[in-house]
Amino acid sequence: MSRFFLGLETSFVHDLPAMLDKIYEDKLNGIATPLFHPRFKRDDHELRSLRDGPETRSDLVMDSRGWTTSVVGTISKWIDLDANTLSTRLNAEKVFKQEVAWASHLSVRAVMLPTPRHTHCSANYARVLNQSLTQAQYLHFWVRIPLILQPQKSTATLPMEIDPVIGLCRTAMIERNEEANENQIDPWAIWDSLRARCEYHPKLHVALEITADLPSDEAIQRWFGEPLKAAIISTTIFLTNRKGFPTLSQRHQKLMAQFFQHNVQFYLSGRPRHRGKLSLYVQYLHFLYSKRPNQDRKALFEAPYLDYLQAPLQPLMDNLESQTYETFEQDAFKYNQYEKAITKALSATVEEKVSVVMIVGAGRGPLVRCALRAAMTANRKTRMFAVEKNPNAVITLRNLKISEKWDTVTIIASDMRSWETTERADIMVSELLGSFGDNELSPECLDGAQKFLHEQGISIPQQYSSFIAPIMSSKLWNEVKAQDSLKSFETPYVVRLHNFYALASTQQCFCFTHPQLNATIDNRRQAELRFLAAESAVVHGLAGYFDAVLYEDVMLSIEPGTHSDGMFSWFPIYFPLRQPLRLEKGEEVVVNFWRLESNNRVWYEWSISSGNGKCHVPIHNPNGRSYWIGL
Amino acid sequence: MSRFFLGLETSFVHDLPAMLDKIYEDKLNGIATPLFHPRFKRDDHELRSLRDGPETRSDLVMDSRGWTTSVVGTISKWIDLDANTLSTRLNAEKVFKQEVAWASHLSVRAVMLPTPRHTHCSANYARVLNQSLTQAQYLHFWVRIPLILQPQKSTATLPMEIDPVIGLCRTAMIERNEEANENQIDPWAIWDSLRARCEYHPKLHVALEITADLPSDEAIQRWFGEPLKAAIISTTIFLTNRKGFPTLSQRHQKLMAQFFQHNVQFYLSGRPRHRGKLSLYVQYLHFLYSKRPNQDRKALFEAPYLDYLQAPLQPLMDNLESQTYETFEQDAFKYNQYEKAITKALSATVEEKVSVVMIVGAGRGPLVRCALRAAMTANRKTRMFAVEKNPNAVITLRNLKISEKWDTVTIIASDMRSWETTERADIMVSELLGSFGDNELSPECLDGAQKFLHEQGISIPQQYSSFIAPIMSSKLWNEVKAQDSLKSFETPYVVRLHNFYALASTQQCFCFTHPQLNATIDNRRQAELRFLAAESAVVHGLAGYFDAVLYEDVMLSIEPGTHSDGMFSWFPIYFPLRQPLRLEKGEEVVVNFWRLESNNRVWYEWSISSGNGKCHVPIHNPNGRSYWIGL
Repeated sequence: MSRFFLGLETSFVHDLPAMLDKIYEDKLNGIATPLFHPRFKRDDHELRSLRDGPETRSDLVMDSRGWTTSVVGTISKWIDLDANTLSTRLNAEKVFKQEVAWASHLSVRAVMLPTPRHTHCSANYARVLNQSLTQAQYLHFWVRIPLILQPQKSTATLPMEIDPVIGLCRTAMIERNEEANENQIDPWAIWDSLRARCEYHPKLHVALEITADLPSDEAIQRWFGEPLKAAIISTTIFLTNRKGFPTLSQRHQKLMAQFFQHNVQFYLSGRPRHRGKLSLYVQYLHFLYSKRPNQDRKALFEAPYLDYLQAPLQPLMDNLESQTYETFEQDAFKYNQYEKAITKALSATVEEKVSVVMIVGAGRGPLVRCALRAAMTANRKTRMFAVEKNPNAVITLRNLKISEKWDTVTIIASDMRSWETTERADIMVSELLGSFGDNELSPECLDGAQKFLHEQGISIPQQYSSFIAPIMSSKLWNEVKAQDSLKSFETPYVVRLHNFYALASTQQCFCFTHPQLNATIDNRRQAELRFLAAESAVVHGLAGYFDAVLYEDVMLSIEPGTHSDGMFSWFPIYFPLRQPLRLEKGEEVVVNFWRLESNNRVWYEWSISSGNGKCHVPIHNPNGRSYWIGL
Repeated sequence: MSRFFLGLETSFVHDLPAMLDKIYEDKLNGIATPLFHPRFKRDDHELRSLRDGPETRSDLVMDSRGWTTSVVGTISKWIDLDANTLSTRLNAEKVFKQEVAWASHLSVRAVMLPTPRHTHCSANYARVLNQSLTQAQYLHFWVRIPLILQPQKSTATLPMEIDPVIGLCRTAMIERNEEANENQIDPWAIWDSLRARCEYHPKLHVALEITADLPSDEAIQRWFGEPLKAAIISTTIFLTNRKGFPTLSQRHQKLMAQFFQHNVQFYLSGRPRHRGKLSLYVQYLHFLYSKRPNQDRKALFEAPYLDYLQAPLQPLMDNLESQTYETFEQDAFKYNQYEKAITKALSATVEEKVSVVMIVGAGRGPLVRCALRAAMTANRKTRMFAVEKNPNAVITLRNLKISEKWDTVTIIASDMRSWETTERADIMVSELLGSFGDNELSPECLDGAQKFLHEQGISIPQQYSSFIAPIMSSKLWNEVKAQDSLKSFETPYVVRLHNFYALASTQQCFCFTHPQLNATIDNRRQAELRFLAAESAVVHGLAGYFDAVLYEDVMLSIEPGTHSDGMFSWFPIYFPLRQPLRLEKGEEVVVNFWRLESNNRVWYEWSISSGNGKCHVPIHNPNGRSYWIGL
């Protein structure tokens, strides 16, 4: 669960323990401070000399727990790793590594690195950082990136301080900035080039500097696909309310709310501008945190699963465990919808007739209960068959038939594809859908079962579709990469997507309807979808969703635009890409998706390319070599 | 060694053995022919039906050796894997796979695949091909790509036949085509998208269709960085000479000469247009082949090493073997240059003085001989020291001192960096250069040895520089990829580059001069170089070269622009890239190169990015983790 961490960013502090005591009094949790004095510009000569004096304060001023929990080391901003002359670069490297080594020795949690000052050529910065990342044991590296980067006056220096802007001027400034957009450097691009050269190292994170002017919502959203660890809030971005207290603009408040959801640490910077009191800012930010919406049942259920990769279920090949049934049976929304759909379908039948309802894949019986309730509501007589292949679930069903007096229900212990009967169903109900709709082989199962359906019979669901969207997620891509195998990059994962950014809205991929009345049924599918990138970003994979028409207007959906409120049975599915694909804002990306089959398997293959035909990612999972679903 | 293979491309042949007998009479070596009759358009229904008749000729018409050596199967051109409707695509896939399976069954060497007809969207073609490649045991796949693709009349059909153009009209047509260049589809881009999606599969090759009009030299050159296996020569591209015989234009002849160097198989296509006789074309092409330049000593020496990756020598850490010395001592050009340089340096000394010449790293003595001859030529008295760390080579040197009466020569069995002496050299001669100049640690060795040099003393070499160029080479990239490790992608290789294309001219990278008179010597180097791609291409790595100033105007060079004629001691060096980087024609690519050091090692790190700052390849070999040179 998220915890609110608010620290202070300071200039060099001589008496660190005293300073920490002071900030704890102000209800702050820690400090980000330079490890070396900024005037201590060690040149080559000085480094080699055998000076007697220490180069900075001793590690002994605190115990190592103090360093780890309370201090983030700020790396000197004057270090210029991409200076024009080799000697300056080599000296900068020496100093940088000295500071990193000292931070490592102190066991501080992280070092805060300055924004690369040469926005178009920080190759040497990246190289030195990459070496440090590769060698680091526990130390994390946070690169400071401002949300908006003011156009540079010269290529050599970057204005690190944002001028304070207050009150009414703000709006005008934002508009002017939008106009000047063309000349502005996209701060995200600086970050992207750095981390691409460092190959998405898992110890490399972003510390976002919140600026007075904010970029577009889309540009902000994009940061939530990045490994965001900290946000730096300057006192200069605060407005003043009527009583003279600091407050944030509506857009800044909205941004803070998003940070709260992503476990970001905050660092206040700059001198207090309201009555000279730091505590006023602290109080205000604590107030904002306390105002965040309460977590509902669904959010609490999902919290431990955020960004956690799971192999998709194979309920056809494997038998589910009792615990799994238990979890999914708790989804009230889903079964309400099923009950509504069955009620509606029964109501459409002739009143006197005894309707035959078959539950194919009955599990531990939740759909049987839905159907029994629906029959009551619709006031229809029914005979029911609950077909289930898992012998363990059949035991539960047979017990329920006795304990709950399911007199009209016949339990059939059989795979729905091989059951032999002369009964014909008016309504056939199933819940065989996976996160991607068809990925648990609902089409193949229902094709097998539909022979028990009357010619005019109804399948619930009637139709389902998969949806995909290209997404950026450093975190998920890195999680897959950590497994270090081709197989892991060619397997989809069920995951509650959280630390991600969708470059474009979802589009429909495959669609299936039931019953299928064609002479020859073919469940292979091929889709080619084109998306326009809303912002410059990197595609790390495809997010997959589904929606389903249970009956007429009764729907289930996990597609973001139409997500059924409160339903938690399905997380999205994530199809990774072996190579990230970088796109410019407005650039087109083409996604090819195939659903393929052989005698005993179904699998997907997927591929992606830039719309201009220049860049092509290799086709994933040829012949289902890494991932397939057993029939 | 290259062998001339000329086959015939035909339409469907009913009696294959008879046809083969006929073409052998015409001195042709084989045939490329459809495996199924083109009018046999098997639709879904037909495939499923239990027809009695065979679908094509029997495999029994020939033994398997006949199929393997003489036949390439042409896949039906009408198969449209990217048709608009799913059913057509699925049927096309079935037919494609049936033909591939049959080809595999026959054990023909390769199948010839049609040019993708949907030039902008052959995702499904790529997917089906990729599946076949992944499953293939021995079969190779040649994709037919024309050198020039005529602008398409509709998106659905591609004109596969090039209209015959003869005589004087040719030049005018070429010019018109150059003008219309903007609208033309680059055939290479079609190939590139296909093989990128198929991830550079080693069984995937190009069969180039030689067109009457030829693209620019640069565009032709680019194909020699691709896995080129065959060239198809239509009879329509031949001109008629005064006697009425077929002949090729000068540019076509030049192109053929290049094919001869790359072991390409040729296939004649189309009906004979000169006196109705195929043999005239065969004779002419044999004549062209016989006219190719004789292979010189250097070419013969190099032939077995073409595109063969070798780990660079580590002569400082390892002792060379006698055989290695023997090979390199045969480079007459190199030692001539050394002799010239020493002669020139000695001639500049005062006549009466006895000059001290030190050979540091004397090996088995070739430079001692050079120096002795130079002393004769320059008519100078000398005292020589031959310093050698390899005890095995010292045995040779001591024997030579007796057998060749090296009375003025003192043999010193010592590492040049640790030898203690009061002698001071007027001239210090070394041959410590690697393919990349400094990569065998010449700088570090000579820094150690220069303490024996007089203040005004001369080092031979005086200076050396490394050079790099971005190159495309599917072959080399695949060779590295086959090793399937990070280490293999972060190691440079010494290799006689052959199947490659340089996207841009080489540029100087690092430079070292000797003696180094600075107080503190620093052999670390950093370079950032920018190249413009002469054609749209993929960068698979960097080619490295060097040149050296031995003394004044006496040079050695393996840099392509200034390569010393006949010198064979050094092959280029290849630094691979883990991810290929695709560039458009005229696009800039930035290469960063670092020479770095620690106490006991020297290593390189390298990185590459697109000039627009969009794409960044991860930095290779951080901290020398995969490759380093031991001090």
